[in-house]
Amino acid sequence: MSELFLRTLRDDPADAEVPSHKLLIRAGYVRPVAPGLYSWLPLGLRVLRKIESVVRSEMNAIGGQEILFPALLPRGPYETSNRWTEYGDGVFRLKDRRGNDYMLGPTHEEFFTLTVKGEYSSYKDFPLRLYQIQTKYRDEARPRAGILRGREFIMKDSYSFDVDDDGLVKAYDAHRGAYQRIFERLGVRYVIVSAVSGAMGGSASEEFLAESDVGEDTYVRCPESGYAANVEAVVTARPEPIAFDGLPEPVEYDTGDTPTIATLVDWANGAGLGREVTAADTLKNVLLKVRQPGGEWELLAVGVPGDRDVDDKRLGAALEPAEYTMLDDADFAKHPFLVKGYIGPKGLLANGVRYLVDPRIVDGTSWITGADKPGRHVVGLVAGRDFTPDGTIEAAEVREGDPSPDGAGTLVAARGIEIGHVFQLGRKYTDAFTADVLGEDGKPVRLTMGSYGVGVSRLVAVIAEQHHDELGLRWPSSISPFDVHVVIANKDADARAGATQLAADLDSRGLEVLLDDRKSSPGVKFKDAELLGVPWIVVVGRGWADGVVELRDRFSGDAREIPADAAVGDIVAATAAPRG
Amino acid sequence: MSELFLRTLRDDPADAEVPSHKLLIRAGYVRPVAPGLYSWLPLGLRVLRKIESVVRSEMNAIGGQEILFPALLPRGPYETSNRWTEYGDGVFRLKDRRGNDYMLGPTHEEFFTLTVKGEYSSYKDFPLRLYQIQTKYRDEARPRAGILRGREFIMKDSYSFDVDDDGLVKAYDAHRGAYQRIFERLGVRYVIVSAVSGAMGGSASEEFLAESDVGEDTYVRCPESGYAANVEAVVTARPEPIAFDGLPEPVEYDTGDTPTIATLVDWANGAGLGREVTAADTLKNVLLKVRQPGGEWELLAVGVPGDRDVDDKRLGAALEPAEYTMLDDADFAKHPFLVKGYIGPKGLLANGVRYLVDPRIVDGTSWITGADKPGRHVVGLVAGRDFTPDGTIEAAEVREGDPSPDGAGTLVAARGIEIGHVFQLGRKYTDAFTADVLGEDGKPVRLTMGSYGVGVSRLVAVIAEQHHDELGLRWPSSISPFDVHVVIANKDADARAGATQLAADLDSRGLEVLLDDRKSSPGVKFKDAELLGVPWIVVVGRGWADGVVELRDRFSGDAREIPADAAVGDIVAATAAPRG
Repeated sequence: MSELFLRTLRDDPADAEVPSHKLLIRAGYVRPVAPGLYSWLPLGLRVLRKIESVVRSEMNAIGGQEILFPALLPRGPYETSNRWTEYGDGVFRLKDRRGNDYMLGPTHEEFFTLTVKGEYSSYKDFPLRLYQIQTKYRDEARPRAGILRGREFIMKDSYSFDVDDDGLVKAYDAHRGAYQRIFERLGVRYVIVSAVSGAMGGSASEEFLAESDVGEDTYVRCPESGYAANVEAVVTARPEPIAFDGLPEPVEYDTGDTPTIATLVDWANGAGLGREVTAADTLKNVLLKVRQPGGEWELLAVGVPGDRDVDDKRLGAALEPAEYTMLDDADFAKHPFLVKGYIGPKGLLANGVRYLVDPRIVDGTSWITGADKPGRHVVGLVAGRDFTPDGTIEAAEVREGDPSPDGAGTLVAARGIEIGHVFQLGRKYTDAFTADVLGEDGKPVRLTMGSYGVGVSRLVAVIAEQHHDELGLRWPSSISPFDVHVVIANKDADARAGATQLAADLDSRGLEVLLDDRKSSPGVKFKDAELLGVPWIVVVGRGWADGVVELRDRFSGDAREIPADAAVGDIVAATAAPRG
Repeated sequence: MSELFLRTLRDDPADAEVPSHKLLIRAGYVRPVAPGLYSWLPLGLRVLRKIESVVRSEMNAIGGQEILFPALLPRGPYETSNRWTEYGDGVFRLKDRRGNDYMLGPTHEEFFTLTVKGEYSSYKDFPLRLYQIQTKYRDEARPRAGILRGREFIMKDSYSFDVDDDGLVKAYDAHRGAYQRIFERLGVRYVIVSAVSGAMGGSASEEFLAESDVGEDTYVRCPESGYAANVEAVVTARPEPIAFDGLPEPVEYDTGDTPTIATLVDWANGAGLGREVTAADTLKNVLLKVRQPGGEWELLAVGVPGDRDVDDKRLGAALEPAEYTMLDDADFAKHPFLVKGYIGPKGLLANGVRYLVDPRIVDGTSWITGADKPGRHVVGLVAGRDFTPDGTIEAAEVREGDPSPDGAGTLVAARGIEIGHVFQLGRKYTDAFTADVLGEDGKPVRLTMGSYGVGVSRLVAVIAEQHHDELGLRWPSSISPFDVHVVIANKDADARAGATQLAADLDSRGLEVLLDDRKSSPGVKFKDAELLGVPWIVVVGRGWADGVVELRDRFSGDAREIPADAAVGDIVAATAAPRG
């Protein structure tokens, strides 16, 4: 450590929000260069490389072949896939000296597809699993939390190529299994959640989320069944339809100035309807403009029970790949039949507005909703009898206590950090690039693809987030920058020589040893050892004269004295033992 | 090989100019993505990683500590060093979503300096040697020769920081030695040449050039003394001055239409001057405009013996960091005293034009040169007597047969590819960023830096360039993608099983084995084995029934039969033996 390029900081950096960011900076693992851009100092780089090596070994174990693409990528293939436009502001774009357009690649589907198409032409060449561990770029609107969400980061991205769906499922399962082994080896606590596809298009999709309170991803799970899903992917439990027999006819009321759900509920409870009315009895209609890629803006109304908001993420995912925006006053002015605050299903449908409702609005449910006239609502409007929507949409917010889609219990919410994604892309890119090979029957077969990612550099922060205490970092053995941290806490020349020899002996036994041979005080050294987070700390201190050294377990905090002359064997054994 | 992501090509790619490019493409090591941008396929990536690992081990051996910076770098520090402007068109520039300027880093002096300044504050923290193995970018005007000159490439760049010049010299020597070991381990034939500093500024500087006919760098060497230098760095052997006594006075002649050296020499030999005149007797004056950074354009005249051209690279290096351009007709029109084709020293000096001459133009040399009037020249104009230049400049071309600067013999020219550069930067960047630390005497000390680079990805092509024959690649063992290539050239099930077992046994002995288990013909397999270039090829063929396999040395072409039951030991021994 007297030569290691390292300076630890006593205080948290001013702009650091989350524990991993604070500790990785304080312990000298990374340093900021610009927003979302970090340099890796020696200790951080060691952790990063160990994570890479775990990821690489598991990818090789499922037959993955490593290749490496440039990060600087020409526009052409992104035009073909339409992502040059779709990426919007989220990527870095640039021109070369000849004025040609380039992108700093956020992901490489296009180039893997083109490469496989260029090299292979027969079904005999498949299945094929390729991957790279590569630097990626995203121009995040709000880079945050240090390396948790940077603008330059390292990802492992894999792509599978198969001639049939069976092959794709096998590749998907193989990657899913490899990811489970990777995160287990890295000591990450995680859940696998169902996910919708997002901008990537395609079918089956799951995310690996590290459990963390500082995570940006909200997911829900059912403790009874183990079901877990991204909020975008939650499928609402659909109630049974209700028979129309005996349901009262709708009645229109003058409700006064009641443009909000709260004022409407107040009116209803004062109107003598003969029952307690809540927001859940009302039907709220939200007006949007939607545009399919290459299409025109069209009106869309979304009906949800009045006690729920429309969730922007769920709405976006449900409308994908269309873009959408809320109606503004000018839009309302253009469509006089839209009476703001009093919009009802009948007016929407009569005027040809596409109308999608929450799955809870099944046939036979009866609603208090707008009557399409200022100050007027209708009570007892029955779905399937008095109005028939154009379909359902998963846009209403998901709440704790909602029934689990599998019927096993209720949902609870949790936060996580996305660390992996497995995804059956299907033929989105092979269609775009006509990636066909000759099939067994001599006819062309369109390839089908899977896409799989692990956030390699992010994992450094994720693991720091999950494994730290108030004193500092606590690395799992598999990725600690060193196996053992030997602290010289005795100024005696004999102790110093003994500690140096002990470090050399441990090194010759295959352990990576960090020797604190600085001239600092024992107190400073102990604090640094706790901050740096190497799992085993050996203190050569006052006990040296009595033939003992101290072995501290950074994880449990346990410390015990061991005989100096048996220290090498004891420490090797301790580091080799599985940890709780 | 039945599963390896590889397709070899029978024909050279149309746009490939140099052997390494042709072979690396044909053998499926790399693929073009865009001009100067390549993907690394499995075999190429294996070679690249092995080179990285050799470089890393030698850098660690001299106390280098590995860190890693982003490739995407903010403008600010480049403004401070003035390189944001100096780089001109040679780098990729871009803006983020907030409109801030970034560069894709071609080199990282600014950020290493800032980082060391940020972490360390005392002389006790030094010496310090940091390095990274990182992706770099240059927007080359003419990306060429495959990965020899790409626009995205991998470099190892190191920076040393010391508190005194002694430390810098030690760091420089350590890097120089490490580079010699690296290139020796990689099997590269190279020379070390003196170099001028180029855009980096600073003092002592040497380049490591791989010997290659396809190299872009011309250098000269003296076979007698071993002297070698970049053409930019050659210091002209300066003749002894000649006494003026007895030298005839200058005489002006009407020379007719003689604006070129050739026409002037023709005139002189017809004019009865009493001696044979050659171009070397004439003095040619080349007119330039020169601008120092931040300054105004100024006239500069360069005088060289008429038998030599001005060498653009040497002129540029001599004028560094100023930019320059030749005078155009409009410029001549602005300065009527410049009589094109008849410009002489007297007119230049009389009109205040800065006038620098080749070092051969020493006092007492007598010249035929322009008389500053149309159709007129002067004969016998003596340097130091009739005109006194403002100084000398190393701008004339260097030619084979020129005397070596060390006086040991004459120079011969050769071509090379730059693979490494060691460079005493000095305080250029530490001055720019005020990188001071507290010295032993309690006073601030300005740090001094060295900068050292190895072209890691370029080395793949350089080694391919130096090690191939008409059949394909021939990798040195240290970086071959595999140690042994086992070819199944016998359809018999027993032979196939035997070959597979042999491959497994070699693998268990620690060798990396490529097994050609494809269903192709032996002829196809042999051709591919020769193309791929693994140093040892084992053929399990017709001899299997008689208990022998064939061991081929890809480098020498030698082949011998070895007993199948002793094959593992024989092959392990062959791969371990040093090669000629």
